[in-house]
Amino acid sequence: MKTVIPVELPQDQYDITIATDGLQYLGAWLAATGKRGKVLLVSNPVIFKHYGQTALNSLTEAGFDVCQCILPAGERYKTLRSIEKIHTVAFENRLERSSTMVALGGGVIGDMTGFAAATWLRGIAVVQVPTSLLAMVDASMGGKTGVNHPHGKNLIGAFHQPSLVLIDPNVLSTLPGREFRAGMAEVIKYGIIWNEGLFEQLEQAKRLDQMRYVGEELLHDILKHSCQAKADVVSQDEKEAGLRAILNYGHTIGHAVESLTGYKLVNHGEAVGIGMVAAGAIATTLNHWPQTATDRQLTLIQKASLPTQLPENINIDDILITLRSDKKVKSGKVRFVLPKRIGEAFVTDQVTDDTIRSVLEKMF
Amino acid sequence: MKTVIPVELPQDQYDITIATDGLQYLGAWLAATGKRGKVLLVSNPVIFKHYGQTALNSLTEAGFDVCQCILPAGERYKTLRSIEKIHTVAFENRLERSSTMVALGGGVIGDMTGFAAATWLRGIAVVQVPTSLLAMVDASMGGKTGVNHPHGKNLIGAFHQPSLVLIDPNVLSTLPGREFRAGMAEVIKYGIIWNEGLFEQLEQAKRLDQMRYVGEELLHDILKHSCQAKADVVSQDEKEAGLRAILNYGHTIGHAVESLTGYKLVNHGEAVGIGMVAAGAIATTLNHWPQTATDRQLTLIQKASLPTQLPENINIDDILITLRSDKKVKSGKVRFVLPKRIGEAFVTDQVTDDTIRSVLEKMF
Repeated sequence: MKTVIPVELPQDQYDITIATDGLQYLGAWLAATGKRGKVLLVSNPVIFKHYGQTALNSLTEAGFDVCQCILPAGERYKTLRSIEKIHTVAFENRLERSSTMVALGGGVIGDMTGFAAATWLRGIAVVQVPTSLLAMVDASMGGKTGVNHPHGKNLIGAFHQPSLVLIDPNVLSTLPGREFRAGMAEVIKYGIIWNEGLFEQLEQAKRLDQMRYVGEELLHDILKHSCQAKADVVSQDEKEAGLRAILNYGHTIGHAVESLTGYKLVNHGEAVGIGMVAAGAIATTLNHWPQTATDRQLTLIQKASLPTQLPENINIDDILITLRSDKKVKSGKVRFVLPKRIGEAFVTDQVTDDTIRSVLEKMF
Repeated sequence: MKTVIPVELPQDQYDITIATDGLQYLGAWLAATGKRGKVLLVSNPVIFKHYGQTALNSLTEAGFDVCQCILPAGERYKTLRSIEKIHTVAFENRLERSSTMVALGGGVIGDMTGFAAATWLRGIAVVQVPTSLLAMVDASMGGKTGVNHPHGKNLIGAFHQPSLVLIDPNVLSTLPGREFRAGMAEVIKYGIIWNEGLFEQLEQAKRLDQMRYVGEELLHDILKHSCQAKADVVSQDEKEAGLRAILNYGHTIGHAVESLTGYKLVNHGEAVGIGMVAAGAIATTLNHWPQTATDRQLTLIQKASLPTQLPENINIDDILITLRSDKKVKSGKVRFVLPKRIGEAFVTDQVTDDTIRSVLEKMF
């Protein structure tokens, strides 16, 4: 199975290619975009062990001059220090403006490689080869790149669109189950904010908690519809001036929960799941969407074995304080994405602290 | 005197305002672009002592909520560490996506503030208030921002256009004479690559080596024509795909000389002066422009009291090696900008090492 989703932006255009066993065509497909010369592959030790050789061979066979930079795995290495490491390898191997960086890994590797490419010689090409479900359906597309600041996540970054996104669903076979479920939270999100058909397809699935129960065909569909949803939104609003904000559905409360649990107890996808439960309940409280929709959403999140309640020892006052320090705050007002029906969402800054509090109190 | 030069780019448009005593209108003119809210002023201790209070007062009176970050002066602080310092102040003062950074200083402050703004929350607005002649006619415009990598200058960076460039010629009164002359090298460059009228105006001036001998009127004209030249070129080629490369006239050999003398013995403008002498001689050797033009250029560079010979203990082989490591090298070929007449230049990769060597040997 192979699906190509073209992404059209005002100044860039690139393809998202979803293909079983696609990794072995990385070199050929990169060459097909017109690229030649040097490639710097960035990965982490775990991913590199599984897929590094296939990627390197593919690039070398297509005539690229390849070097590599292997960074330790984990969000805590997503820093300017790691960017400097990538840049040092780029310097040592004399990467030129016409060279390419390839991110082989999950969201952390993708964000860092994208940012390193955005800032090396004021911007060279980057190819995203996401290896986690979360990165496949979200981080690898749309051009958001960056690292963490000691005081907050993703505060440092740049918009830098990839030249190619290559998604090989096979690589998910080595992804831990918990990370698969985390990615499923973003998939459910696309169903709610953009694609009712995807939502209904997910409702019909027997299980959504492990790759082997989802099956090759549904997985391909999930990837296709999720990537198409993101491509649609990003094409209409590359720099997050308006529409793109809906991609943050579930992320407002979600980010606060992640932050307050030190990014350890709850991972990003789990936090988004909790955030969607909260946002859905807020929307119902404010009469934007019916209780039945909130219930259908809850059922789906549970089917993916994602948590739907707040962590026990989290404090609601702390959540409210954290919401105000989010980088998406505009003139001091917290913006929420709320669903208006399954398949459509909107942005509002008219949610009061009292409403947030009353919803969260029921989520323990 | 006040001149406004509009810069039109595919996705951005901004004004370069050249105005005597313009610094006191910084706040008003920033507000006129539609900006409100928080401003982070970045400067160095020397510049801040002279002009910080005027800038802060102007911003505060216009209703902005202002904070500041004062970084040590000097190229050796143009690092990712300094960017982190700016970001920390941005975090502490809760700068939002709608906030603005203002660079009050020379090229180093401008490059760093631009890069910090480009990468904070994936890009916030920046205003350039250049205080050196070099920054006024070159670095503050065109959107090139960045820092140095331990292995090379300006290897890390991004394109990020300012929202406003405010040039107040009065602030040059505190600029050391040597730095004034360094800026004059870039002014002469614009005469050669773009504006024959500017070149002739410079020829008619009695002296070009110190601000007080140049006079207010000619200085305004010099700033106007230089900024217009850069604006013309950048508008036609924002990302340095082609035409913009001509701005590097004198910079090929110049960068090598700067690098090989450790960025200390020879400053950037002086290096560009030496580089223009070399490029002019190469163009004459290759029959692209006449000896008389090379001579006129030499006379002008001397009138600005800029060096026209290579530093004594520099090695020509080292220059040739350094040329190959320049970030503008494309597929291993060194690109030179050569004049074809006064007011027009072109880019070529057809200059042999033998030609370079024979020209440089006569420059001791």
